[in-house]
Amino acid sequence: MLVDTDLSAYRIAAEPYYRPVGDEVAVFEAAWLHRLPVMLKGPTGCGKTRFVEYMAWRLHQPLITVAAHEDMTAADLAGRFLLTPEGTVWHDGPLTQAVRHGGICYLDEIVEARQDTTVVIHPLTDARRILPLEKRGELVSAHPDFQLVISYNPGYQSAVKDLKESTKQRFVAIDFDYPVPELEAEIVMREACVGPDLARTLVSIAACSRNLRGQGLDEGASTRMLIHAGRLAAGGVSLEAAVHAGIVLPITDDAEVREALGAAIAACLA
Amino acid sequence: MLVDTDLSAYRIAAEPYYRPVGDEVAVFEAAWLHRLPVMLKGPTGCGKTRFVEYMAWRLHQPLITVAAHEDMTAADLAGRFLLTPEGTVWHDGPLTQAVRHGGICYLDEIVEARQDTTVVIHPLTDARRILPLEKRGELVSAHPDFQLVISYNPGYQSAVKDLKESTKQRFVAIDFDYPVPELEAEIVMREACVGPDLARTLVSIAACSRNLRGQGLDEGASTRMLIHAGRLAAGGVSLEAAVHAGIVLPITDDAEVREALGAAIAACLA
Amino acid sequence: MLVDTDLSAYRIAAEPYYRPVGDEVAVFEAAWLHRLPVMLKGPTGCGKTRFVEYMAWRLHQPLITVAAHEDMTAADLAGRFLLTPEGTVWHDGPLTQAVRHGGICYLDEIVEARQDTTVVIHPLTDARRILPLEKRGELVSAHPDFQLVISYNPGYQSAVKDLKESTKQRFVAIDFDYPVPELEAEIVMREACVGPDLARTLVSIAACSRNLRGQGLDEGASTRMLIHAGRLAAGGVSLEAAVHAGIVLPITDDAEVREALGAAIAACLA
Amino acid sequence: MLVDTDLSAYRIAAEPYYRPVGDEVAVFEAAWLHRLPVMLKGPTGCGKTRFVEYMAWRLHQPLITVAAHEDMTAADLAGRFLLTPEGTVWHDGPLTQAVRHGGICYLDEIVEARQDTTVVIHPLTDARRILPLEKRGELVSAHPDFQLVISYNPGYQSAVKDLKESTKQRFVAIDFDYPVPELEAEIVMREACVGPDLARTLVSIAACSRNLRGQGLDEGASTRMLIHAGRLAAGGVSLEAAVHAGIVLPITDDAEVREALGAAIAACLA
Amino acid sequence: MLVDTDLSAYRIAAEPYYRPVGDEVAVFEAAWLHRLPVMLKGPTGCGKTRFVEYMAWRLHQPLITVAAHEDMTAADLAGRFLLTPEGTVWHDGPLTQAVRHGGICYLDEIVEARQDTTVVIHPLTDARRILPLEKRGELVSAHPDFQLVISYNPGYQSAVKDLKESTKQRFVAIDFDYPVPELEAEIVMREACVGPDLARTLVSIAACSRNLRGQGLDEGASTRMLIHAGRLAAGGVSLEAAVHAGIVLPITDDAEVREALGAAIAACLA
Amino acid sequence: MLVDTDLSAYRIAAEPYYRPVGDEVAVFEAAWLHRLPVMLKGPTGCGKTRFVEYMAWRLHQPLITVAAHEDMTAADLAGRFLLTPEGTVWHDGPLTQAVRHGGICYLDEIVEARQDTTVVIHPLTDARRILPLEKRGELVSAHPDFQLVISYNPGYQSAVKDLKESTKQRFVAIDFDYPVPELEAEIVMREACVGPDLARTLVSIAACSRNLRGQGLDEGASTRMLIHAGRLAAGGVSLEAAVHAGIVLPITDDAEVREALGAAIAACLA
Repeated sequence: MLVDTDLSAYRIAAEPYYRPVGDEVAVFEAAWLHRLPVMLKGPTGCGKTRFVEYMAWRLHQPLITVAAHEDMTAADLAGRFLLTPEGTVWHDGPLTQAVRHGGICYLDEIVEARQDTTVVIHPLTDARRILPLEKRGELVSAHPDFQLVISYNPGYQSAVKDLKESTKQRFVAIDFDYPVPELEAEIVMREACVGPDLARTLVSIAACSRNLRGQGLDEGASTRMLIHAGRLAAGGVSLEAAVHAGIVLPITDDAEVREALGAAIAACLA
Repeated sequence: MLVDTDLSAYRIAAEPYYRPVGDEVAVFEAAWLHRLPVMLKGPTGCGKTRFVEYMAWRLHQPLITVAAHEDMTAADLAGRFLLTPEGTVWHDGPLTQAVRHGGICYLDEIVEARQDTTVVIHPLTDARRILPLEKRGELVSAHPDFQLVISYNPGYQSAVKDLKESTKQRFVAIDFDYPVPELEAEIVMREACVGPDLARTLVSIAACSRNLRGQGLDEGASTRMLIHAGRLAAGGVSLEAAVHAGIVLPITDDAEVREALGAAIAACLA
Repeated sequence: MLVDTDLSAYRIAAEPYYRPVGDEVAVFEAAWLHRLPVMLKGPTGCGKTRFVEYMAWRLHQPLITVAAHEDMTAADLAGRFLLTPEGTVWHDGPLTQAVRHGGICYLDEIVEARQDTTVVIHPLTDARRILPLEKRGELVSAHPDFQLVISYNPGYQSAVKDLKESTKQRFVAIDFDYPVPELEAEIVMREACVGPDLARTLVSIAACSRNLRGQGLDEGASTRMLIHAGRLAAGGVSLEAAVHAGIVLPITDDAEVREALGAAIAACLA
Repeated sequence: MLVDTDLSAYRIAAEPYYRPVGDEVAVFEAAWLHRLPVMLKGPTGCGKTRFVEYMAWRLHQPLITVAAHEDMTAADLAGRFLLTPEGTVWHDGPLTQAVRHGGICYLDEIVEARQDTTVVIHPLTDARRILPLEKRGELVSAHPDFQLVISYNPGYQSAVKDLKESTKQRFVAIDFDYPVPELEAEIVMREACVGPDLARTLVSIAACSRNLRGQGLDEGASTRMLIHAGRLAAGGVSLEAAVHAGIVLPITDDAEVREALGAAIAACLA
Repeated sequence: MLVDTDLSAYRIAAEPYYRPVGDEVAVFEAAWLHRLPVMLKGPTGCGKTRFVEYMAWRLHQPLITVAAHEDMTAADLAGRFLLTPEGTVWHDGPLTQAVRHGGICYLDEIVEARQDTTVVIHPLTDARRILPLEKRGELVSAHPDFQLVISYNPGYQSAVKDLKESTKQRFVAIDFDYPVPELEAEIVMREACVGPDLARTLVSIAACSRNLRGQGLDEGASTRMLIHAGRLAAGGVSLEAAVHAGIVLPITDDAEVREALGAAIAACLA
Repeated sequence: MLVDTDLSAYRIAAEPYYRPVGDEVAVFEAAWLHRLPVMLKGPTGCGKTRFVEYMAWRLHQPLITVAAHEDMTAADLAGRFLLTPEGTVWHDGPLTQAVRHGGICYLDEIVEARQDTTVVIHPLTDARRILPLEKRGELVSAHPDFQLVISYNPGYQSAVKDLKESTKQRFVAIDFDYPVPELEAEIVMREACVGPDLARTLVSIAACSRNLRGQGLDEGASTRMLIHAGRLAAGGVSLEAAVHAGIVLPITDDAEVREALGAAIAACLA
């Protein structure tokens, strides 16, 4: 059975928990007014996905999310023919569903995709707002409520893998970073169901790890990791073991970096 | 359902807004007289796509646009067999549709395509004006109103990816660049619905960014980005935030370049 | 015939023999409480697979194991359409089976897989807990008893093949290493049906080989190899020949390393 | 509908305009007498394709042209099975059509093809004169009027892409170069419908560009480009603009080379 | 017609001629007792294949041999769906046949295979002894008489192509080398039907070639080559010509190495 | 329609013209007696293909020739399933036809093939003489009259592309080179229908070109090229033009090498 054309399965039922950190809501709403394409920039686990869920809820739009990867083809986005007893039947891909019926299509980590995927969005992101389905010989004009949102982690950008200028210049961009300490502690308290002291301790540990970024760590601990550690501690594991399993072990295998991180954490826990 | 053979879906209904900057209209019309293939050269977002839309409207021709990419195959242009209950049925690709029924076929960023795509256009771009559909065993003679147009961004050209000499020499070329300031301000006013002062400010910001080209920026801000920033400002975002989200953030992640660009912009806004 | 939807074929009938070495059972149970994704880290043959079998038995969950490799596709995990006389029929892959019906899905050596495989697990490993089956147009919400476990051998990690930060940070991690000597001897005795003296001798040989790690050996002898040698000896082969066939020959072809290892072993056997 | 087996669609109806420049017609006719395979060598746009059309007309043979490229497979030449309601039906490729029914098969830019394409012609180019259709289990003996012709641009030849010795030695070769000035002017007059003065001017411009070959230009302007510039001028564009659009812009994007070429052209036009 | 499920076509009818050179039969039988996986190591043509045929005969087991190569896929081992008038029908691959019905599955030169092939054998080579057929959704438990044997030529091992540690450590290993001179002469006499003097001469020539290993030769002459030369001589060719055609020409094209080898051989023949 | 199972289409009707140059006929016949696999070594166009045709005629065997290339798959040799209205039907490839029905299978330039092609012949080239058709689940025992012959040009051999030792050692080898002058002149006279003086002149030109091997030429002129030049001359082209078109132009594009070769040829023609 295929999804309903009202995309109701993709609507966000309840308000997602999101704490604004700047003017990101205003910029997104101004972009939405003109249906300008939006690019969310920032490190792993800092809340980009949660933000787009929040905006979809706020704007009463369904949200279709696609995690891009280097083996994804344009057909994975646009659709393909399937063979049935009645012959070949066209099947809209997730992007085409959003283009046809309206809603926000969120392409996560677009930079991982091959060019056929990024190029397919070009005619959707200028004045034409069309999606040519070449294999079907159809030109789909975008629904008035269609908007395209992509995420992009600048830390991954390399000579090999980067968006082309002709793609980048089609988007309005919003920068994300980790929340400020008080806000992050509030998020950890709420999501991991821990008390304010433990939350603050975890946030101070995150700060230590983020300072090691570039000195052995590719990225510091994300807010998500603090929540993991908080949940393990709430599940009965000692705080030391919870921090070890939720934060230290996942982000590094290097003995020296582990030691440096461990020492910094011990100071926080003391 | 396949597109109608009169390609009416591909006709440009209303005159596209286009402001000529030189003799490009005359050269294109002389090329059209002899149906010579045309190559549009120039940077991202300077109006090549809008120009070809304008010429298609002016010449009363349908316009079939294909965004080339490195995973596109010759079959994506020429067509393929589809399996139906009645057996395999041939399905013309976008290029074959234009060749058969007449009209302008616009291959955007042809240099991204693989050789099987560029070679397929050779017999269409010399005296033969034929398209051999090898898989179907058919020689399609081009409709008298068929013309091929390609775009080509010289800034992307590299040793790995460039058109072969035997391809380049088949085209008449037209150079494009950003419009002169007064003209660009007029375009921004019209497309972003902003006043003349704001438009001129945005154009002066674009000039700053274009001066940084080669000094950290791959390309300067396109006219499209100025329109984005104008629309965000018109949508209630402060001018600083609009310029930041519409121009600065999308084109660079480099802290130093952002600072240089920011300082130049601050001077424009002062 | 496809597997039953209760996944009974994947239930562990009898308690697997597993000897805990630290707080790994407690950490896993705390992670299970919140269904946090778990990453098992450690060298070849140190008991990661046995541990996850033990936990599946302890938690009364079916265990679906998939050995990842670089030619595995997302479809191998998620499922695909098969052609039958009634047309194309969807066939859930092993991951989808676990997501739909509950249970532990264990992806062994995930780092070997391509990105389309690792990215497919992202929406399963955050608050969404969904698996989008794009080809089928279905959003599968995870069963309350679904948990994802992956293994990861840090020794294999390289610039080319490593998990992305945005993947790593989704997991709680547990470190594994070879068991301490007394415990390892107990395991060898039980699994190879040999006496305590022989078991201890084999464990001392393992220690010698592990000391050569980095000095010609990529990894030392695993507990599994000790069991092999023990079984060969129990099968009537001399101890020297059993150690040679079960331990020395499989791990190195280098004449010098063989000699060094042989001398160390001779000392153990003396 | 497939092509008729008399290949009438591939016959050249009217005598192609071709001006011999040496003994190429005599050599080709002697090769045709023994049906020896022929290789046409020379730069882009110097008339190789026109020559083979002329010879096909002169010898009353159909001409089947295939533009080789690196994604072309042996099946594109030899044929393949297509699925129809009656099951799989064999479909002769263009090479097999010529082999079976007689005529000249012209493989343009053979050096671009992969080895499976070049190897497929080996048994056709020695005493055997057979084409094994392995997938069909058929040995096709060449029609007495079958001849194979290939083109080859030595300027493209590289270590990576070159014909194997065992392929080269199967062909008689004919060298091509640009026509001498008077002849080239005559061709430009006839094809672009321009007067003798303009034709001579364009030919002198071509000479300038050919002198820059190796000094910034990969190839000089071909005769085809002179015809393009002539047609643009005949279409009402100024001569300067016609030369710029038809010759200068297509062959170089380098500012210095453009300037050098522009100065040389200005001298010709003065 | 598919093979019978009793695999009778794979049974070895008559005792293969095999001369043991050490304790290899005892080690293999001890491994068979516990159905431990076995790896046969040694140079080209030294009798590994003959040994496994002998052991299969001795243990009354069918022998399914698969020559691994880098284009072999996991489906070539495990099986695949075939399309028939009744729809898709599963077809067991050679490995699955042995797993299901019992017998020795011999993967020759496993190191040539891609990782998906080597990983597929992991769950068959530990306590689980299962083969997951993911595409079929079936877990095949190994027949009590299933055993896996692989061969591995250490001389081919390179950084690019080597077994992973986690694969190697799953096998008991047996080393092979060329037989001692008297034994090798006996083998040559029997297999080439030549007298003892000629056999001894050929064996001495082999020794010369094996001494040149690493000094221009990748490997010395195998026992198989001696048999070839013996057979040519028995077929009426002079001994010099037989040795030249059967030994010298196949193993080297280097003029100097041929001369050195020729001089050594002349001394043997003198 | 598939080929008849008596392979009559592959029988050589008339005695091929072949002039022995050494003991190659005797060695081949001794190898045929024991059905030993044979490898023919030598440069391009020196008569390897003609020799195997002659031996097939002499031994009254059909000859199935396959030109190997790097895109050839094992299925191209062994066979594949084809889809027909009755479902999938197995279709023997050329190798399987020879294995099943007897005859010589000649794999031309085997070194060009991928490993899956070379490995498929291993069980056919030792005592087993079987061809496992894995996809069909069939073990084909070779017909008593099956023999495998391969060709191999040592000049092409490189680190990347060479036969594996374990493949080479399975073959008896025969070396080929250009015929001695009198013999070559006789061949040219007969095949090009020219007189003895012209033939001797062409042979002396070949000698010049072969001396330039390694000094700008990859290979010298083959006997085939002399025949081409002779035929062109017999077809009315001047001797200079015939030598130029048949010999000089095909083997080099280097101006200096052409000049050196031209001077040497002029001396021969004087």
